[in-house]
Amino acid sequence: MTKPKYLTGDKAAIGVIWSGDHVFEGVPETLEYLRSRGKKVVFVTNNSTKSREEYLKKFTGLGIPSDVEEIFGSAYSSAIYISRILQLPAPKNKVFVLGEAGIEHELRSENVPFIGGTDPAFRRDITPEDWKGIADGSHLDSDVGVVLAGLDLHINYLKLSHALQYLRRGAVFLATNTDSTFPMNHNFFPGAGSISMPLAYMTGQQPLALGKPSQAMMDAVEGKFRLDRARTCMVGDRLNTDIKFGVEGRLGGTLAVLTGVSKVADWEAEDPVAVPAFYADKLSDLRAGATAAP
Amino acid sequence: MTKPKYLTGDKAAIGVIWSGDHVFEGVPETLEYLRSRGKKVVFVTNNSTKSREEYLKKFTGLGIPSDVEEIFGSAYSSAIYISRILQLPAPKNKVFVLGEAGIEHELRSENVPFIGGTDPAFRRDITPEDWKGIADGSHLDSDVGVVLAGLDLHINYLKLSHALQYLRRGAVFLATNTDSTFPMNHNFFPGAGSISMPLAYMTGQQPLALGKPSQAMMDAVEGKFRLDRARTCMVGDRLNTDIKFGVEGRLGGTLAVLTGVSKVADWEAEDPVAVPAFYADKLSDLRAGATAAP
Repeated sequence: MTKPKYLTGDKAAIGVIWSGDHVFEGVPETLEYLRSRGKKVVFVTNNSTKSREEYLKKFTGLGIPSDVEEIFGSAYSSAIYISRILQLPAPKNKVFVLGEAGIEHELRSENVPFIGGTDPAFRRDITPEDWKGIADGSHLDSDVGVVLAGLDLHINYLKLSHALQYLRRGAVFLATNTDSTFPMNHNFFPGAGSISMPLAYMTGQQPLALGKPSQAMMDAVEGKFRLDRARTCMVGDRLNTDIKFGVEGRLGGTLAVLTGVSKVADWEAEDPVAVPAFYADKLSDLRAGATAAP
Repeated sequence: MTKPKYLTGDKAAIGVIWSGDHVFEGVPETLEYLRSRGKKVVFVTNNSTKSREEYLKKFTGLGIPSDVEEIFGSAYSSAIYISRILQLPAPKNKVFVLGEAGIEHELRSENVPFIGGTDPAFRRDITPEDWKGIADGSHLDSDVGVVLAGLDLHINYLKLSHALQYLRRGAVFLATNTDSTFPMNHNFFPGAGSISMPLAYMTGQQPLALGKPSQAMMDAVEGKFRLDRARTCMVGDRLNTDIKFGVEGRLGGTLAVLTGVSKVADWEAEDPVAVPAFYADKLSDLRAGATAAP
């Protein structure tokens, strides 16, 4: 293992670009600097609760210039995988969604039919009629061929029960991502993996995850942006998603920033999940280092 | 591995005594027969949604004579473990419950303080105030020293978020049981394990399970009933809970009945989780075999 090179710095928080609604110091200027040097910037996120359009609004609201085409989320990645790679024959291509509106928007944009998601019909307690109808199949939609699990802030027993039956009947098991936790307010909350893992435990079957570090996502990013892997650097704050994604994708570089989840000790530990080529305290050190250079 | 002895029989369904509200043929008579021969009968269940009192009502309603003292559920087992073995010093012995009323009844019977459970305050969507209050700790109860996860038909993101924080702050992680599925209406629904597994995944920590096949439950059963293990037979329908429980507890016998989850093929498979000493199609074959003997 090669020891990662340290770039510069002094600070810590959660994420790469922002933490909640707080943009890290110098981030807009750094992105501007990179673009001015002719670099293509792509934002790759595992968060499936927002669609690309919603992310664009967030970027704009926080004063970060961007374009919807630069944004690549795990909900979008999942929709593309289902519509362009999986290509189940209609009408048996319906998706049962465990997740929020971001997934629904992206499935719609690819014309993929779905049920579940934010439908109020599934946001309630299980009833005696449900036990019966789920068990005998009369409450199930026979066109469902895929179960897609993302972060669902409205997860409940009724949805898990439906998802279990679809998987038992042979539906393809996909996850937008399997992050164990979700960083928020300088702390951790249950991540998308906490929605798919119970189903994996019940069925003995692991989902195909379409977010980082899945190389299915890397292939989709490469296909869309026609990028040259050797001249691409993955910047991220998590070893087990971001850095692993870049290393396994054989990108030219990987840069860990210490404003998020992973710390230096994580890759200096025995048998680390991935080791970055470079690390820096924060994203803006890229520009600081550059401007300080002769 | 010794091949299990086949006793007799002809039928299949879910469970040992009943499936839902249907009592298997000949079960009351078989229990009566065993008692008439001087055998002590103990009902050991992993279902934590009902208390012993509620089980007694079910037994009585289904025409099966029994006594509350013969019933040993995983909720009771958990309450006993917390109050008599764990014995955390008050007031730091409060339990955050993921589960139904059965757990609450048994904790009350052992005078163990708890929050969560069926409290309507936790049966709702997560709000912006929750994200903040859970992250900064102001919504948390500093007396919580245990997280106890059982089957919770009202599981939601708010409860999982609270449980995660308590575990991150060092609470002891217990599960009434970790059954992956819950048999109902001749089909399968998410089991108690689907409540604790997301927390295990988020924290990287496995819960101590207090239901079958945990030997903590066997010790509690032995302590209460003063039974002679060599003269005790475990009857059950699941290899990975019931039969494993009996085998690891070094009981004199284990009897698998085919009215439930496991089939002959399960222990004839390579590397089975447990192998029973005996098997029969149904519990009442015990009596049929006996009455047919000279």
